Amino acid sequence: MTNERSVPDPNTVERIEQVLSGNRRALARLLTEIESESEGIEHVLAALFSHTGRAWIIGITGAPGTGKSTLVTALAKAYRAANRTVAIVAVDPTSPFTGGAILGDRIRMRDLSGDSGVFIRSMATRGSLGGLARATRDAVRALDAAGFNIVLVETVGAGQSEVDIARMANTTVVVEAPGLGDDVQAIKAGILEIADVLVINKADRPGVNTTLRALRTMLELGHPSSRAQLNGSQIRHHGKTMTAQTPTAHPTNHTTAPLWIPPIIQTVASEDKGIDELVNAIEAHRAHLHANEIFAEIERRQIEIELYDRLRESLMNQLIKSLPEETFNDLVRRVQTREVAPQHAVRTLLHEASGRGVP
Amino acid sequence: MTNERSVPDPNTVERIEQVLSGNRRALARLLTEIESESEGIEHVLAALFSHTGRAWIIGITGAPGTGKSTLVTALAKAYRAANRTVAIVAVDPTSPFTGGAILGDRIRMRDLSGDSGVFIRSMATRGSLGGLARATRDAVRALDAAGFNIVLVETVGAGQSEVDIARMANTTVVVEAPGLGDDVQAIKAGILEIADVLVINKADRPGVNTTLRALRTMLELGHPSSRAQLNGSQIRHHGKTMTAQTPTAHPTNHTTAPLWIPPIIQTVASEDKGIDELVNAIEAHRAHLHANEIFAEIERRQIEIELYDRLRESLMNQLIKSLPEETFNDLVRRVQTREVAPQHAVRTLLHEASGRGVP
Repeated sequence: MTNERSVPDPNTVERIEQVLSGNRRALARLLTEIESESEGIEHVLAALFSHTGRAWIIGITGAPGTGKSTLVTALAKAYRAANRTVAIVAVDPTSPFTGGAILGDRIRMRDLSGDSGVFIRSMATRGSLGGLARATRDAVRALDAAGFNIVLVETVGAGQSEVDIARMANTTVVVEAPGLGDDVQAIKAGILEIADVLVINKADRPGVNTTLRALRTMLELGHPSSRAQLNGSQIRHHGKTMTAQTPTAHPTNHTTAPLWIPPIIQTVASEDKGIDELVNAIEAHRAHLHANEIFAEIERRQIEIELYDRLRESLMNQLIKSLPEETFNDLVRRVQTREVAPQHAVRTLLHEASGRGVP
Repeated sequence: MTNERSVPDPNTVERIEQVLSGNRRALARLLTEIESESEGIEHVLAALFSHTGRAWIIGITGAPGTGKSTLVTALAKAYRAANRTVAIVAVDPTSPFTGGAILGDRIRMRDLSGDSGVFIRSMATRGSLGGLARATRDAVRALDAAGFNIVLVETVGAGQSEVDIARMANTTVVVEAPGLGDDVQAIKAGILEIADVLVINKADRPGVNTTLRALRTMLELGHPSSRAQLNGSQIRHHGKTMTAQTPTAHPTNHTTAPLWIPPIIQTVASEDKGIDELVNAIEAHRAHLHANEIFAEIERRQIEIELYDRLRESLMNQLIKSLPEETFNDLVRRVQTREVAPQHAVRTLLHEASGRGVP
């Protein structure tokens, strides 16, 4: 087992030291390079990796209109008041035309500007969805290595992006608000599989009791005893489902630690109401994970999924580089004319690739 | 370029002929095998592939509570009245504990039972999300080969599943309903990138004008001129965005055919109101695609994405089979202790695999 470490050049070593010492300019530059997928960045990230694992990473997700950004701002202020340093990563997986709303969100965070214990960064979609997830994970690691105590990762609750966040967070907070949905069904299916803490924000609005009832019903319906039939490559563990999207070649054992039932916290983030309760719930979740050795187990599964994701991406990159464009396009044409079945086209492409020595 | 075709055995040939001749039992058995990922099924599917491409595939997606199933039932009745045969594939990507609601939906479709021109099939999550997408695509192809004129694919609007449907449908219908969201933001971001036709169902309810205004605003904001900055591996074409989640090694040219602006149709599906207008809108979309050679271009891109997906899955399967579990688990442990960076762990795994001749 060689090939795991390489010696970074002196320039890289200097940059790593700057990031580790909390140099904000060096950190900002690194995050820009992560976002733009600069070449050579992998060496820096690999070197920083041994300095990670100290921050508590809190994922915050919810539908548009739930007041996530205001909640994140209030949460950051509360942690600052307790003398903890805070980094915020705001991830926007949506299309460019919603940019206006996101910009407005960022403006609300101005309350935090000028505080050297706070670092705020937006990440937008560049290239593929998978690319954004990887960039976000790398950014969170960089902020962890830079010494921030708390890393808040905010993303709109839109399918894959919230699953991605749950896969890198230590505590995942799902935000709801009254009036966005009238019944249990309207609350997004699958929410319980990623939520460690549930928040009803804008709890001074009419309909808060309906939302509360709907969430409670979901919690009851979703009690693990009724969900034991989760199967396939889904790895379920106390509020975290992680679908590897790969065969379960390496099945994991389920531990039998005490059950964590996501608490429901009511907040009015714009008035800082309920924020202390939310901080307490997050801290209780952290204590729960550490007290029962669940933390190490979840982290192990998150790493498994990360390695699968990275392998998948590397294999595809190698394959695509090795295949002549004409071979690929020719097969697409022949599938389109129904001359060749997709199953056979893929076999041909793999055969071509292995002839060229991939991987 | 050999290896693309293989001669199926006599039993397989007989099964294929039964499916092609419209034998419902043979078709049902095939769909069960597709869902359970039976071995040897690939040969049957490959042989059926040359008989596909005749059905019009309509994807129908929307949030829970919009009345999708009632709409699908009404649409199926309308097509039957026009003497078209109809297959319905109801895809459920959500968790087991929402099974009750889905069952209720299926019961509503009983109106259609006893009609030999209709075939209804539910598909649930087995294993990975990626597995469900592949199974759905294969099921749709089998129904196409079996000679159904119209294939309706219904799925809850939940992130990846609706993108998957848009990637296999010829026309994608997105269903909204009044009262589920009060403002533009609450309507799911990205909706316009998959919708060819927009439906406001339950249009007899209060708030229909608010929903209509919100959708119109989105259509205006979402006009392609303001969305030209779509970049990376997103392939955009007249209401279809398909993210390959792979580098664009094989970039495609954009055609300059006339623009399709998704029409907004108001329906009350439970009373069959607005259904003829919806059928007309779908037929207009079909005519638009065929009149401007857009159809072939979209189909080509859908095939490209399918081949990428299949390649990714095959490569991962080969890799996982070739790696000893202990090698993988050992690396996961060393990443967890921060001894090895994930980047280096992946390099080691790929190195191990290529030593074992993968692929």
